[in-house]
Amino acid sequence: MEIKLTQTVQKGGCAAKIPAETLREILGQLDFSIQDPNVLIDGRDFDDAGIYRINDSIALVQTLDFFTPIVDTPRAFGKIAAANALSDVYAMGGIPKTAMAILAFPSSALEPNVLKEVMEGALSKIREAKCSLIGGHSIDDETLKFGLSVTGTVNPQSIWSNTGARTGDHLILTKAIGTGTLCAGLKNGDFAESDIQDAIESMSQLNQIQDLLSPEELHSIHAATDITGFGIAGHSYQLARASKVTLALELSSIPLFEKTLESIRAENLTRAHHSNRIYTENHCRVLGKPAKEQLLSFFDPQTSGGLLLSVDADHSAVLLKKIQSRFPRASIIGRVLPHQGHELQLHD
Amino acid sequence: MEIKLTQTVQKGGCAAKIPAETLREILGQLDFSIQDPNVLIDGRDFDDAGIYRINDSIALVQTLDFFTPIVDTPRAFGKIAAANALSDVYAMGGIPKTAMAILAFPSSALEPNVLKEVMEGALSKIREAKCSLIGGHSIDDETLKFGLSVTGTVNPQSIWSNTGARTGDHLILTKAIGTGTLCAGLKNGDFAESDIQDAIESMSQLNQIQDLLSPEELHSIHAATDITGFGIAGHSYQLARASKVTLALELSSIPLFEKTLESIRAENLTRAHHSNRIYTENHCRVLGKPAKEQLLSFFDPQTSGGLLLSVDADHSAVLLKKIQSRFPRASIIGRVLPHQGHELQLHD
Repeated sequence: MEIKLTQTVQKGGCAAKIPAETLREILGQLDFSIQDPNVLIDGRDFDDAGIYRINDSIALVQTLDFFTPIVDTPRAFGKIAAANALSDVYAMGGIPKTAMAILAFPSSALEPNVLKEVMEGALSKIREAKCSLIGGHSIDDETLKFGLSVTGTVNPQSIWSNTGARTGDHLILTKAIGTGTLCAGLKNGDFAESDIQDAIESMSQLNQIQDLLSPEELHSIHAATDITGFGIAGHSYQLARASKVTLALELSSIPLFEKTLESIRAENLTRAHHSNRIYTENHCRVLGKPAKEQLLSFFDPQTSGGLLLSVDADHSAVLLKKIQSRFPRASIIGRVLPHQGHELQLHD
Repeated sequence: MEIKLTQTVQKGGCAAKIPAETLREILGQLDFSIQDPNVLIDGRDFDDAGIYRINDSIALVQTLDFFTPIVDTPRAFGKIAAANALSDVYAMGGIPKTAMAILAFPSSALEPNVLKEVMEGALSKIREAKCSLIGGHSIDDETLKFGLSVTGTVNPQSIWSNTGARTGDHLILTKAIGTGTLCAGLKNGDFAESDIQDAIESMSQLNQIQDLLSPEELHSIHAATDITGFGIAGHSYQLARASKVTLALELSSIPLFEKTLESIRAENLTRAHHSNRIYTENHCRVLGKPAKEQLLSFFDPQTSGGLLLSVDADHSAVLLKKIQSRFPRASIIGRVLPHQGHELQLHD
């Protein structure tokens, strides 16, 4: 009998994070003091990539991510987990070089073939990224988990951080939103994988855009982040706070997968829909009267979500067009304002 | 009420690996082909560190390890998990530079304070190694798991691999053996942490020896590996096979923790005691009649075990003395012979 991977899991994907505020509180009590001046960006709030300077022209971009199956097919799960982990390197402007596998496998409950297919899916994306799998660790566990620790390289002068957004910038989002609710709907039996194929393909796609752009166009990207577990709300908030600006976002411009709103209406929600709202609501001013499901999509936790780019307004149209050649759902979803006393301003 | 961490776990530490042969078989079917000529050592059999060349004088040593609690005290668990992960970098002759945390935490079953103390223990060892924690990922999970992905640097000309053992070398083991059975005894209630304090301190100790030795002494180390889940048997076998030699080991010279044999006699055994035997028995010739418990210690899976060094015989006495200044249980446990048709030769 075919086992559906999502039925082997209690909590799914990035939705199964420890709530942001809980984690932040605990981590806030620890001494993370770093003596090494080569650490350019530390990851003390987890889930971001760290940067370590090797010399004047090379720095390492390092990130690590893993989770339980959010789709039913082992190969698709492996692809998505790999694309998701590689994404943080792309989000910093880096190029992935090495990966190590993180594997927890219930060898008494699942056939070895499941492991093989997960690995094959992951390896196909690692190869596509021209990255090399150079190690990993596996344990026997109750629930399947898979992910990668990824190291990329970046020129220390060309790092995309989330501190550089400038007033007047346009905001480009490269992928549609809704993987949280759609994967919940898959797990709840509301959908088959074929119903959410657009989301599965999107999650499997590498966040590689650098090879599409000229050096000048790359230079016009002032800040970047990838959209993952905290949703478009949480990651926009983090970018705005780090850049000391307000992001004005147009809810109706945010691209959604075909069944995102239907899935939310059917109450396929995760704990993260709630915790992402709690995390951001005191920092967000809502203008107009957005429909409830539209607003919930704003808090939807993404797995292997798109890049959010803060781009010089003069270049945004050209950038968008080039990015759309690979990411057809890419859209301009808002712009950057001087800080308004809150980090996010949401228009319906 | 104080929760004993080992009581929250079904299977413990490195003993909870997927059996070596099963993993090897699955991984053997995958296409790991690597195009990047900068990958000097890949980790296609997992559990080894990979090496990636940055330039002529710098290569990255990368490794990743994590597991469920093998001791009851959160701080001790954090220290051991960190020392264990850092160890693979030391075992290749590298110096750890960055670490990322791998955390699975049952936030409904354990107090946040447990997480804080695990992290504090880990951070204390990361700082001791002059390494920096620059990121990580956490998920909510049924069972606590913790570990690190570690990146170190090494001169590509000075890598300790497991291919360099030479006929005539002496074999130095830096730590005593027995953590597998002792942690099983702890979990089974045969021991309190205070009974196995020697093993807990040993597992918490960093495998750093380079700063003790002169460049010439370092040069006399022809091969190295660290002893972890496959035990002294499995890791000796891997080193012998990679170097195309036979390791002649004297069972009575292998240092054991105070209660190792008592614990084995009380049948505190793990699945790995069996699978490590299966993994190596066709490659090992046993001379004499070792006692059953002595032989089982040979297969005991280690967590954060010592380094096994293949050292030029002329330098071994001086090296041993210097290493003993930090690792008092360090011992010469055998020597390297030309290949005898089997990889291991065990004397009682």
